[in-house]
This record gives sequence, structure tokens and C-alpha cells, in this order.
Amino acid sequence: LSSILRGGRITRTRDDVVRFISSIQDDRRIAHSTVLVNEAHVIALAEAKVIARSDAGKLLSALKRLEKRIRFPQRVEDVHVLIEEYVTRETGPQVGGLLHIGKSRNDQVATAIRMTLREEMLNISDCLLSLERVILQLAGKHLTSLFPGYTHLQPAQPITFAHYLVSMGDSILRDNQRIVQTLSRINESPMGGGALAGTSFKIDRGLEAKLLGFQGLAENSLDAVGSRDFILETLSVLSIIATNLSRLAQDIIYYSCADVGLIEIPDEFTSTSSIMPHKKNPDPIELLRGKCACVVGNYFSAANAMHGLPSGYNLDFQEITPLAWESLDSLESCLEILIQLVPKLKLNSSAIANRLELTTTTEVANILVRREGLSFRAAHKAVGQAVRTTLAKNVALKDLTSEDWKAAIGKPMNSATMISIGKALDPKQSIFAYKTIGSPNPRRVKQMIRRRLRLVQFEQKSNRRAVAELTRSYNRLGAYRLPS
Amino acid sequence: LSSILRGGRITRTRDDVVRFISSIQDDRRIAHSTVLVNEAHVIALAEAKVIARSDAGKLLSALKRLEKRIRFPQRVEDVHVLIEEYVTRETGPQVGGLLHIGKSRNDQVATAIRMTLREEMLNISDCLLSLERVILQLAGKHLTSLFPGYTHLQPAQPITFAHYLVSMGDSILRDNQRIVQTLSRINESPMGGGALAGTSFKIDRGLEAKLLGFQGLAENSLDAVGSRDFILETLSVLSIIATNLSRLAQDIIYYSCADVGLIEIPDEFTSTSSIMPHKKNPDPIELLRGKCACVVGNYFSAANAMHGLPSGYNLDFQEITPLAWESLDSLESCLEILIQLVPKLKLNSSAIANRLELTTTTEVANILVRREGLSFRAAHKAVGQAVRTTLAKNVALKDLTSEDWKAAIGKPMNSATMISIGKALDPKQSIFAYKTIGSPNPRRVKQMIRRRLRLVQFEQKSNRRAVAELTRSYNRLGAYRLPS
Amino acid sequence: LSSILRGGRITRTRDDVVRFISSIQDDRRIAHSTVLVNEAHVIALAEAKVIARSDAGKLLSALKRLEKRIRFPQRVEDVHVLIEEYVTRETGPQVGGLLHIGKSRNDQVATAIRMTLREEMLNISDCLLSLERVILQLAGKHLTSLFPGYTHLQPAQPITFAHYLVSMGDSILRDNQRIVQTLSRINESPMGGGALAGTSFKIDRGLEAKLLGFQGLAENSLDAVGSRDFILETLSVLSIIATNLSRLAQDIIYYSCADVGLIEIPDEFTSTSSIMPHKKNPDPIELLRGKCACVVGNYFSAANAMHGLPSGYNLDFQEITPLAWESLDSLESCLEILIQLVPKLKLNSSAIANRLELTTTTEVANILVRREGLSFRAAHKAVGQAVRTTLAKNVALKDLTSEDWKAAIGKPMNSATMISIGKALDPKQSIFAYKTIGSPNPRRVKQMIRRRLRLVQFEQKSNRRAVAELTRSYNRLGAYRLPS
Amino acid sequence: LSSILRGGRITRTRDDVVRFISSIQDDRRIAHSTVLVNEAHVIALAEAKVIARSDAGKLLSALKRLEKRIRFPQRVEDVHVLIEEYVTRETGPQVGGLLHIGKSRNDQVATAIRMTLREEMLNISDCLLSLERVILQLAGKHLTSLFPGYTHLQPAQPITFAHYLVSMGDSILRDNQRIVQTLSRINESPMGGGALAGTSFKIDRGLEAKLLGFQGLAENSLDAVGSRDFILETLSVLSIIATNLSRLAQDIIYYSCADVGLIEIPDEFTSTSSIMPHKKNPDPIELLRGKCACVVGNYFSAANAMHGLPSGYNLDFQEITPLAWESLDSLESCLEILIQLVPKLKLNSSAIANRLELTTTTEVANILVRREGLSFRAAHKAVGQAVRTTLAKNVALKDLTSEDWKAAIGKPMNSATMISIGKALDPKQSIFAYKTIGSPNPRRVKQMIRRRLRLVQFEQKSNRRAVAELTRSYNRLGAYRLPS
Repeated sequence: LSSILRGGRITRTRDDVVRFISSIQDDRRIAHSTVLVNEAHVIALAEAKVIARSDAGKLLSALKRLEKRIRFPQRVEDVHVLIEEYVTRETGPQVGGLLHIGKSRNDQVATAIRMTLREEMLNISDCLLSLERVILQLAGKHLTSLFPGYTHLQPAQPITFAHYLVSMGDSILRDNQRIVQTLSRINESPMGGGALAGTSFKIDRGLEAKLLGFQGLAENSLDAVGSRDFILETLSVLSIIATNLSRLAQDIIYYSCADVGLIEIPDEFTSTSSIMPHKKNPDPIELLRGKCACVVGNYFSAANAMHGLPSGYNLDFQEITPLAWESLDSLESCLEILIQLVPKLKLNSSAIANRLELTTTTEVANILVRREGLSFRAAHKAVGQAVRTTLAKNVALKDLTSEDWKAAIGKPMNSATMISIGKALDPKQSIFAYKTIGSPNPRRVKQMIRRRLRLVQFEQKSNRRAVAELTRSYNRLGAYRLPS
Repeated sequence: LSSILRGGRITRTRDDVVRFISSIQDDRRIAHSTVLVNEAHVIALAEAKVIARSDAGKLLSALKRLEKRIRFPQRVEDVHVLIEEYVTRETGPQVGGLLHIGKSRNDQVATAIRMTLREEMLNISDCLLSLERVILQLAGKHLTSLFPGYTHLQPAQPITFAHYLVSMGDSILRDNQRIVQTLSRINESPMGGGALAGTSFKIDRGLEAKLLGFQGLAENSLDAVGSRDFILETLSVLSIIATNLSRLAQDIIYYSCADVGLIEIPDEFTSTSSIMPHKKNPDPIELLRGKCACVVGNYFSAANAMHGLPSGYNLDFQEITPLAWESLDSLESCLEILIQLVPKLKLNSSAIANRLELTTTTEVANILVRREGLSFRAAHKAVGQAVRTTLAKNVALKDLTSEDWKAAIGKPMNSATMISIGKALDPKQSIFAYKTIGSPNPRRVKQMIRRRLRLVQFEQKSNRRAVAELTRSYNRLGAYRLPS
Repeated sequence: LSSILRGGRITRTRDDVVRFISSIQDDRRIAHSTVLVNEAHVIALAEAKVIARSDAGKLLSALKRLEKRIRFPQRVEDVHVLIEEYVTRETGPQVGGLLHIGKSRNDQVATAIRMTLREEMLNISDCLLSLERVILQLAGKHLTSLFPGYTHLQPAQPITFAHYLVSMGDSILRDNQRIVQTLSRINESPMGGGALAGTSFKIDRGLEAKLLGFQGLAENSLDAVGSRDFILETLSVLSIIATNLSRLAQDIIYYSCADVGLIEIPDEFTSTSSIMPHKKNPDPIELLRGKCACVVGNYFSAANAMHGLPSGYNLDFQEITPLAWESLDSLESCLEILIQLVPKLKLNSSAIANRLELTTTTEVANILVRREGLSFRAAHKAVGQAVRTTLAKNVALKDLTSEDWKAAIGKPMNSATMISIGKALDPKQSIFAYKTIGSPNPRRVKQMIRRRLRLVQFEQKSNRRAVAELTRSYNRLGAYRLPS
Repeated sequence: LSSILRGGRITRTRDDVVRFISSIQDDRRIAHSTVLVNEAHVIALAEAKVIARSDAGKLLSALKRLEKRIRFPQRVEDVHVLIEEYVTRETGPQVGGLLHIGKSRNDQVATAIRMTLREEMLNISDCLLSLERVILQLAGKHLTSLFPGYTHLQPAQPITFAHYLVSMGDSILRDNQRIVQTLSRINESPMGGGALAGTSFKIDRGLEAKLLGFQGLAENSLDAVGSRDFILETLSVLSIIATNLSRLAQDIIYYSCADVGLIEIPDEFTSTSSIMPHKKNPDPIELLRGKCACVVGNYFSAANAMHGLPSGYNLDFQEITPLAWESLDSLESCLEILIQLVPKLKLNSSAIANRLELTTTTEVANILVRREGLSFRAAHKAVGQAVRTTLAKNVALKDLTSEDWKAAIGKPMNSATMISIGKALDPKQSIFAYKTIGSPNPRRVKQMIRRRLRLVQFEQKSNRRAVAELTRSYNRLGAYRLPS
């Protein structure tokens, strides 16, 4: 226990207990924000005439010095005590003792966490947008590159690599939207909430919020200090992102594995075995998948810690914040690897061609509907039987004779239909047959890419604007002129 | 396996396997939506001239009959097969066989889930808003009802019951915002996505979306059928709501328990023991807390199922959807109990008065700062020492003598300060001393309640509008005139 | 609230609240056990002379009738009340009112859950052992069937299918061990624990435990009724089993998928697509994987519900028990499908041969160590370089010339070494080269299978013995002669 | 990528990728074990005559030097590479290059994790047993100290503090049993499993296991390197322990809070507020509860990472191991705080007396059964009505008149019954009325404590024996004489 808290209600302390409850290592992450919170608070106290301008000036000078060279000794309880102790050493106990008027560690820590968190969330948003950009750029190069579309891990229908990439990107765009919407709930200022009930000093919460770059107030003071659903939501959104990325990772691992070989990961994103000299393992992608799993677990840790917790501040909260930092760091590293890797993925077109043979059966059934007047269900069965014939005769679909088709559809087949089927069996042609919006038809995919690139640009600009606003607020705080 | 799928590629089936993979019991929930999807699809097929108007008419009639009296036999695979079989029986194989042209179970099920889910989410939103309303109404009656504000389960500072209630309500308002934002990602139409690649029939996806009341398209066809992050997000938002409610439940249990007794739960919301005749147990609230815990677990079931799943449709998806229904039902029942219970909570003012004694110490320290020129830190220690004196002398704070205070602050205390302290020790006065926005000051709380009631009204209106829009779409679908 | 609990402390009830807290649907599972608990308790009361022999006789007759034809009306609170009401109707209030002497719903429900749970756990153990048996039997047929051993989803070294199967079976054997050890903690009797503090009636807890087939007592009465770690442990063990099965499912899906095709799933364990006629989807195995994911989530629901719960009985417990039934049912259905499927798996030996080419490199490096005096690290690099040479020249390893090898190892290679390498490149020979215990060498695998089959037999016998003991206890209970 | 792996199959590397996949920081934990594994392997190679005695001697000398002064440079991939590089530097490439003959990182890392894990699990077991001992010792001092037994957070029946403490201890004893049983599955040697298929060198796996202190083999080589259910099980057992501890923490927080005040936490285990001078917050216990929540989340991270992973080694595994270390550290710190705190808990007997008033109603009902011939159900209602009378008249149960009782039981009450009830209402006497095994009767509790203390002693001895055996194995390894 710091001497600034000792000697009042609690007199004795124990080293093991102090070490156990110390948050100082995790507080590094919010140290800079916490100093800024103190600066804003000193200004608010001076504006409210609670403390003298000269005292405020001394406190601000000390805080600005600390801002530049904060140190984290082992044996301090937390960053709040560290700051007050530093300021008290610098300005003496009478002036330093003013720093904590009308505030509490409860509102201070909630404010500092939100400040740091919003920057980190903007960073994740930037990473997501960068990843989306490289995905779209790669897609732009593969508008007509054939690729097997899978369901149930079975080649299902011919698509293009561009179409696949856009589909992966769409979950990333939704993830970015989730981040942005969560940000609006993070970016509210608890400062002035005090321990839980505000204060009897006339502190201008709006001024504090503005100086610290917040868009609004976490108004009710008990809610401001006693809620952590903004962290739960952060962790839940990160866990959704992680789950989406784990699926992308799974695809990359599967498509590139030696047995499948549709895409190739550059050597420098793989490792070899310490014993098996032929191995080329997608180590970073597997690790990424593992990291994503843990991001989900972190949400559960936090939700479990919050379950059934009484209202108001409880120290269980202290375990929740580091989970957010850990998940943010982990996801950032995953996104950075993907941003580097994705542009370097190569297609193996001969392997792809091998997989596409059977994927055109749906279109064959469609042709039987259009040209032979079969109902779809009848056409579906007919093609199913044709497939069985190819297995029995060990030939390809295109090798089926008119006799075979006659057996399948139960009547002689029109020769024009035979020709149509022949075309449909060529996947290169089949992707142009798709008509619907959102389909792999290169024209459709091109449109999708263009619109999404514009959206990425828009969102990136919006992030830059948000960062610029924060910078302006911090500059305003740094240059604030105390009232005379 | 239904006969409509048998006889093509797969010839043999096993009863145990069919029973294992059947989703028919869970499909009840989406059955009505699935029929509507089929109706919209028939219209789109007719509009695209893929099927004849007369065939479309027959299909629609059959579907409308089914809409009214759908039955769920034990041995059918899923609702999609059930519908196609019914329609085929009613219209014959040639017409019925047209129903599945240009669509797949993959897009159909994703569409039906989203349709049902958006209604259920609107319902949860309504429940949240109703709960918020009764909370605010109760708060309106308790603007000056003193209540101990807690941190660390210790009475900390005097607040009002209204202030407490508003704080609980604020998390509910954020929860509602989360629901609404998630809804916008749910309410996009996958229909026309086909199995994963759209179709070569010229189906108007926009028309289908409009007839089914969607606000937009889940555009990329692979993403439309192969993603379930909209369910993950639903479950994660529900789990945040559940965690928030578990805290409210915990507070109600604690405040009302025999040892604490600040509030009283009406008898009819409690149970007695089968053996201990004096017991009055808050059974429904404990059960509610338990139910909330399981809502969180459901999210993890779903996230775990999605982890590392390859892109495209996989049957693992089938396990995820029922988790959403279960969590929605569970939360709805919890919210309904709270909506009934909250208005009936009563305060026990004598118990409250007992708890408030020590909660005024912060204000006493504030007074020492204002009137005795102590720094806050010095004042904090002085009051801490005063508290220890009360424990040693076994008296109340208000009984401390001027000698005691002299010892505590290290100098004789001004008599005006003594008077101020005396006032501050009266919690009734102290709540009016709070100055800041968001504090328990009744004036501040009154403002908060007013603004929040307006917001509730606005959100309720917005929900009603959304429901009306859906009704309009469904009416439009029901009355659609086929092209001649 | 039942009339038997009404009219004392709590007078009013509400239908919605009663419906909310009713556990009657989930209680079906423990209904039979609960009746037996009542029978044992009546005997203990009679033995302790707390109730008259004639009254005990009437109570037992009524309970035995109920045992045979229990009904579950909608509007009853729980099975405990249902039983007491039934008995009271049958025997009149004076005799029926004796039934609850010296017991509580708290000890009664804990006892009935443990009784039902131990039978279900024995059933899961039986399923695991049956699955292990079919795995080992299939392995016995494939002692020399080559198979690629994978790491990182890359073919790594040649193994046999038998070796693979034994490895999968080993986690099942550990799972069975976990079940058995958990069972020993489940199989302790809480009966006599009362509400939490035992009772002042001289009830012989040992007698009750013996009649109900328990191996011992959950001795401390507060622990007996207020702990649920036996359910947590059950759910955690089931979640480990589920995770192990999900890996087996993943392997089956991967090995059998169209791109890989090492093994073949019989048609009747697959489904086709509603639209793509060529598809053969491993639907049941995917669903199984999804079900396994949810078994894990159920553990977290329960752990979350238990987190921070005060000691003693809390109604949150009521949400935990059904999670166990759900996970048990789910796992049982998964195990039954696997027991049917595994014996029908077929190998595709030509596909397997294709994958084995590169997997022999480790053995080539080993040969360079043995015959050319290279250190392993030098040999590893040399073979790695040789592999690159094959890629550059687009040839197989066996086609490398002595010049190629000279370049790789940095010196001319012994011709005897060339011959050795040639042999090693034949996977059929290479599996016999393995020397270590536990390796794929057919001799080693044969030993492993034999020992494991014996273990399965032993464990199955031990389960049968446990079931027989339970039956004996229940028979003893049914035929018990009341003291005269 | 280390130079020892470069230059073979994979030629290029990237710094960001290497940093991303490096496990070197987490490997510190297993570094010492990994060196020992290498020593045992060198011995096995020499015994099998795979390497010369002199080379083995050089390798062992280098390894023993490394054992004493291992350093962790930033830029190395993992501890396995670090060790081989060090040895190669010390002994030259020809000798150093022999080190990896017949082994792989896959079996090496699994072996080192199990070695470290078993020691840490023994440590947790020791902590649990120490905690159990201080709990039992405190219980021994409180055999007749009255305490309210709670259900539903309501005082239910009078118990003793000793009875409560024993109940808490019983879950700890089960937790210890779980640890011990898990240990038996951890303590099996994967060494010799190679990459997945063993090796063609005649390595004696039994010798390696013995030198490394294992009790047996993880026999099947694919299972040995490709399974991590031993970590899943470890994490699941730790999560059950954590959930049990969270309930103990909850009780301590509740019993000691200002509103309840049944027990007192010494000041040095609490903190004050930075703003509210009267506060005495149970900070360490809240933090402990929060830490326990995260231990549960870690299990989910691991289970999620393992879900659906293909068999064989995957790099996802690398994320799982640190979760075990984190949970072990976290639990150890929690247990150590409790071991210090529990002996210092003090009872507040006047507060306890206040809570006990109503808790004797069950015994009153029992007396009505015994002395007035009421059925229990009738007695239960009668006492319930008597309780309502006390509430209406605002008196205590002992103040009810014979008229009141007549009204409650519906007939005049025997005066002897009145006297019995009077005695029963005195909790001091009532605890001696309990008759059943496991009840709070001081005689019963004394027996329970004695038997449990003996069990603790037995388990502690068994742990010491296990540690001694490990030490002997390591000594044997250190002093091993190479074959000549």
C-alpha cells in the first residue's frame, strides 16, 4: 500500500498481498492516458476555482514532465498511486495532495482504459481495412481465374478465385463495421463519475471529456465506473473477428496442403521439419489459427468474471482489462501476417483444373430444365445417375454417349442439348453463365470489387479523421491556458 | 433421405443416420419463413420467365395452403424437403419439380433463419425497452429515496434508489443499441445465392429481398450461404445482455436477502423451502441468473463450432441455429419476469438508514478541503483516522468531539466546519450536495430519466415501424400478381 | 406453488413465476431415481422408529405404484412435489405428510441426479469401449496397410492404417479412464444431508446409501447438498471426449474428401446436395463435429453458472443439470454413429500410394547417417537439397542420379548406400524398418492391439459388474422387509 | 529460421514471420526439462551404439554446461534449436549434428512439457493440501462456534463454523484427487515417438522414460506427439478448482462485508479507497475471484484451439501450452493468499447471534412431529404460519404465546412441547440435536476433521515420495555411465 493511502483507515500491509493485487505491469498500457486524465482534471479543478491557478500550474508542469519519462518501479500498487506519488514528490504534499480532489481511481481507470482502447480499436480497424484492400487487389488480378467453390469440403461448383476472395473480404468488412460501432460505445467519458456518485465539487465533466477527445459522457456516475460491458463487447467483437480469420486460415492451410495444392504459400511463410527434410509446413497460419482460438477464450474469461458481479466497482475488473490488450495484440499480429501473406498467394492452375471436372453438374441439370423440359428435380436425378454412370465406366462426364444420356433422362436427348452440355462442362465458359448479382460472373465480381474498394477508402478516411480529432484534443489539452 | 433426393448420386440410406442428421424439430421455428421464401422464389422464377405463369400459380396456391397448416411428421429430413414433397404431392411431380430451380437448401435456410431471427431480435428489443421503461418509472418515484451506493460490496457513498435504477437501465439501453445494430447485419437477403455460386437463371435477387422484407442483399453468393457470423454476433450480443442481467439479478438477491434487507421482493416472486418453514427464497431471480450463465455458454458452443471451419456450407451450421433460439427464448423469459417484478420492488427505509452512516465520509473529507485548507490527501487521512476513532470508541461519526477532530486533522477545527460536517453526515442533505452531471443529485437524475424515457419512446416507435414494414412486405408477397 | 408448500410462510403465487421456475420437464430424467430415494428414505425412517411400520408400509406401496406409472402434468413445480402430492393423495394427508420428515428437496435432488448420472456415465463408458473395440478390430485387418502419417496436414512419414487407428483409440481409452474416475466421485450419497445440516432424526445414512447402490457418502451435509463439482467434472470430461472425437471426425472428413480420397465413407453415411447432383457430403460426420463443439459450450455454461455462487443450495443449480443430460445424449448419439461407421471405412490404396512418395525422406537421411557417416543435421540438409533437386528436375526421389546425390552430400556416394536408399524409398519396406516400441512396425502394432483388446474386455467386464451391483441394490430396496 | 534448419528444403525466411512463430519466451518454462531430454537421448543413442561413446561424452558435457547457464537470445526460434545450436558450437558440426538422430522436436517438446507440468501439478497439489490443512486447523478451533448455514443466500439452519469449513475443504480434497489422477496421465513418456512414427534406430524408449522419471510410455508414437488431451485435462481440472475457489471467495466477501459482518478479514488483507476514507475493501479476495474466472476461460481457449484439429502435430499446439503455465501460476498465487488468510479469519459472534434467530424453525417443526403427532407437512405449515405471526406482531419466535401456537397447529399445544421448542430455539443447544453422520453436531465434525487431517498427511507424504522419485531419476541421469 502506498504511503498516500496508508495511515488512514488501513494501517497494516503485507508484501505478498500488495504484490498479489498490484496491477502496475498491466497499467503500463494505460500510463500515458492516465497522466493525460490527471492533466484534464487539474484544468477542470482550476476552472471550477477548486484549486488555485498557481497550484494547478505546478501540478500540470509535474504531470507534463512525467508524461515524457514515466518509470515503473516494481513495488508500486498501480499507476494512479504512482502518478500521485510522483507529483507529490515534485510539488510537495500540500500541492500534490490537491490532485485527487473530486476524483477517484474508479473513474480515472475507466477513463484511461477507454482512451487507450479507442486507439487500439482504430488500429485494428486499420489493419482490417488494409487486409481487405490486399484481398480486393489480389481479387482484381483473378477475375477469371477459375477456382473450385466448396461446400462440405467437396468441390461443388466452379467459381473464380476473385469471387472466393471477395467472399472472405465481406466478413472482414462486417467485422470492421462491428469495431466502428463498438467504438462509439467506448468513446464516452466516465471522468467526473468519482468513486460512483460524482462529486460535490463543481467539476465540468463536459470540459474534461472534450480535452480528452471523447465524443460524449458515460453519464450516470455509477454506470460510468461500475460497468465494463464496453470491454465485454470489445472482446466479443474481437472473438468474432478471430473466428472469421480462423476460417480463412483453415482455407489457406487446406488449399495449399500437399494433397490438395490449389494455391501455393511462398516458402518464407513456411517452416520445415527438424527431422523430415521434405516438409514445408504452414506454421505461421496454423499458429494464427491457434491464436484466434485463444481470442475467443479471452471473451469467456471476461464474461465469466463479470457474471453475477454486484453493481459498482469490484476488483475483479482488474483481471478483465489485460484480456483486451492480449486479444488486441494477438489479433494485430495475425492481421499483419495476413496482410503480408495474401498478396503473395499463387494459384496452381493445373491442380485447379483437375478439381473442376464434376463441379459443373448443376449447370448440366439447369440445361436439362431449359432445353429438355425436365423439372429441376427430374433433371437433378438424371444428372446424379449420369455421374454414377461415369463412376461405373470410369470416364469423364464429357465422355458420356447419347445412349448414356438417354438412359439418364429417360428419353432421347436433343443434339443441341448435347452441345450445350459440352459447353457447360467447360468451367471456363461456365463462370460466364452465372447471371445473378453476387455470383462469380467476372462482370459481377468486378463491380463488387470496385464498390468495396471505395468503401475501404471511405472507412480509412474516416479512421484518419478520428485520429486527427484525437490529436487535436490532445494538443488542446497540452496547450490549455489556465484561467487567471 | 427423402425420395426427392434419392435415386441420383446416393442410393442407399440408413434410418439411424437419417434420424441423426434430421433437423426437422428445430426447423419448426423457421417453417413459416421457409414457406414464404419458396413463395418469393416462385414469383422470381415466373418474373424471369423460367417457369410458366400457370405453373407458378399452382405452386403458389399449394404453398399458401401449406403456410396455414404445416405439419411436422417424424421421419422427414428437414423443412426444405418437407415443403418440396408437399408441393409435389399437391401439384404433381412435373410442376412440383420446378420449385427448386435456381435455388438450394443453402440459400433457403440462411434466408429463413435471418427472417425469423430479425423478428425475434425485434421482440428482445421490445422486451428490453419495456424493462427500461418500468425501471425508469420506478426511478421517477424514488428521486429522493436514499440508497447506499456500493463498491466492493461495501456501502460507499449515499445515492438515491433512482440513481441506482438509472445506472442499471443505462446498460439496458446500450444492449438495445447492440441489438439494433446487429439487426442491420441480419436483415440482408442471401436468397439467390444458390448453393454458393448463384445461378445461371436470371433471378432478380432484389425482388426476392423486397418481397421478403429485407433491407439489402448479402451480396457475394459464397458469403451469403457460407457465413454464420450474423448468428455468432447475435449470440454474443445476447451473452452481453445476459451478463448485464446477471448483475441486476445479483443486486436484487443481495439487496433483498435477510441479512441485508434494503429492498423487498413481493412474496409471489419467491418460494419457500420444502423443509425450513421460515424461508423466503428469491428462486426466480436465482434461476434467472443461472439462465443468463447458459446464454453465455451458448455463444461459446457456436464460436467453437465455427472455429477453423472451411468456407462454404458445412453441416456443423445445423447445430448453431438452435443455440440462437434457445438463448432468445431464455432471455425473453428472464426479461418478462423482470418486467413484472421491478415495478413491485419496495424499499425498506429503516434498513437503508442504518447502512448510510459511514457513507458520508468522502463529503466530510471534501469539507475539510474546502473549509480547512487541507489537501485532499491530508483530508482523506484525517477522516480515515476519525473513522478509526469511532471504531475504538464505538460511537458514530457525528458523535466525535472537537478534540477528536483536532487529533485527526492535527489542528483545532473551525466551528463552522463542525456544522458543515454535521450537515454532511445527514445523507438526506448530502445527495443535494452532488454537483456533477450524472450524479445522484435528484435534479440531475430527473433530467436523466426524462431524456431516457424519450429515447425509449423513440426506439419503441422505431421498432413498431420495422414491424409494420415487415407486415407490408409480407402482404405484398401474399397479394403479388404474377406476370401474364 | 404446490398446495403442500403453500399456506405456510408464502401465501401468494403467480402462474408466470411458477411456470418460470418449474423444472418438471427436466425432472423426467430423474423421476424414477427420485421415487427410489423416497422409498429408501421411508425405510430409513421406519428403521429409526421415526414413523410406524404400518405407515411406512402404506408409503412404500404408494411409491411402488408410482414407480410403475409416473405421469408429468404440466402445472406441477417439480418431481419432488409431484411425488409427495401423489403419495398424499393415495395415503391421506396424515400418512403422506410423514414422507418429508428428515429430508429436503436439496438432498433428494442431489441424490437422484447422482443415481441417474452414474448410469448414464456407465452407458457412455460402454459406448467408448464399443467404439474402441471396432477401431481395434479394423486395425487388426490393416496391420500392413500403408497410410501416410501426417503432421501439419502434410504427409510426413509412412505409417499403417492400423497404427493410425490405434493412435485414435488411445485417446478413447484415456477418455474411458476419465469417465471411470469421475464416476467414483459421482457415486457418493448425499441422502441424509437434509437442507444442508442433516437432521435431528436418527436416520442411518449408510443404510440409505446402500439401498440406493452408492459406494460411499458425500459426508459433510452442507457439501453434500451445496456442491455441484461432480456435474462440472462430468461436463468437463464429456467436453474432453467431444474434443477428441471432433479430431477423429476431422480426419475422416479430410481423408475421405474428394480432393484427398484416402478412405471411403459408405454412401449410406453421406448425403447429396439438393441442387448439385454429383455431391457426396459427409453430413453425419460434420454434424457430429458440430455436436462435439456444443458439448464443450455446455461445460462453460455450467462453469459460468457456478462461478462465484455462494455456498449452499442456490436455484442456479437447476440450470446446470439439464446441461449434463444434453451433453450425454449428444455424445451418445455421436458415439453410436461412429460405432456403425468405423467398421465400414474402406481404404483407397492407389490414392494412398500417391501420397507416400516423399514421406520416406527421414529414412533416407537416417541411411546417410548410418552408411555415409554424415551427422544427422548434415544428412537432413543433404536430403532437403535432394528434394529441391527433384522439384527442379520434376522427377521422383528414386530417379535422382549418383551425380545428384554427390551434389547433395558433397562427396561421391557409396553404391551400397544407393541400394539402401532405393529400398527405403519403397514404403512397403520402410514400415518394417521402424524399430521402436509404439512405432508403425506391424509387429509392434499387433502387440498394441492385443493388449488394448484385453484392456477393453477388462473394462467392459468391470462395467457389467457395476451395473449388476446397482441391480442388486435396487432389488434389495424393492424387497426390503420393514422392521416389525 | 535457424541455420541448422535452413539450406535444406526451405531457403528463404522473413524476420516478421520468424518473430511471429517464435516460442522462445514461453519455452523458458520447459528449457531445463528440454536439456535433460537431450541428455537422456544421447545416452539412449550411445547405448544403442548409434553414436560413439566419445561423441556421446562430448555431447553430454556440453548439455550439462548448458543446463547450468542457459541464455535466451531474442532471435532464436525455439528452445530445441537453441540447444542444438549451442551444442553444435561447443562440439563442432560433426558431433553436434548427431544430437538430433532418431528424435524430432515433436516428441521432444511433448516430453519436456509433461516433465515440467508434472512438477507444477505436484506443486498445486501441495498448495491444495496446505490450504486444506489450515482450513481443518481453523475448523478444529471452531467446533462449537455457531454459524448460520445458508441456502439461497438466506440463513437456513444453525451450523458451526467448523462444519462450514469442513464443507469447503471437502471440495478441495476432491480437487486434489483430480490433480493426482490427471498426473498419472501426464506422467507418460512420448520420447522416442519421433516426428510421429518412431524411428528405425534401435532406441530404448523404456530407458529414456526411466532416466526422465516417467512412470510409463505414451506408447503409440502418433498419439504420443499428436495428442494434447493431457493439457486439456490439466486445464479443465484447474478450471474446476478455480470455480470451487471462486465460491469460497464469494463466501468470504459476503460474510465479511459491512452489511453482514459475520467474519472479519484482517486489515492487511484489505485495501482502502483512494477517495472514501472509511472503506475497507476485500481487494485480494475479489481479485482472486476474477483470476479464477480467467482460469476457466483458458480451458476454453485450449478446447477451442483443439476443436476439429487434424491428427498429428499442428502448430496450434504452441498456443495451448502457455495457457497451462498461466493458469498454474494464477492458481498458485490464489492458493498462497488463501493459505495465509484463512488462519487469520475471525468470527463476529454478536452478528452471528443476530442471524440465527429464524434458523431453528426446521427443528421446531421436527419437534411438532415428534411430540404433537403432526405429520411433517402439517408441522411445516404450522411453523410457517407461526413465522408469519411473528412478522405481524413484530416479535421473536420465542415470544409466541400458547394461543399463537394453538392457532398455528390447530389444537392446544402440550406444555412439554413448549419447553422443547424453547430449547430448540436456542441455537447453542440445537447443534447438539443433529444426529446424522456429516451433520454439524460437534462430535460428528470432530471425527470428520480427524479423518481428513490423516488423509492430508497421507497425500502430502505421497507427494513427497513422488518428488523424491523424480530427484532420484534426475540424479541417475546426471551420473549415468556411458557404455564402453
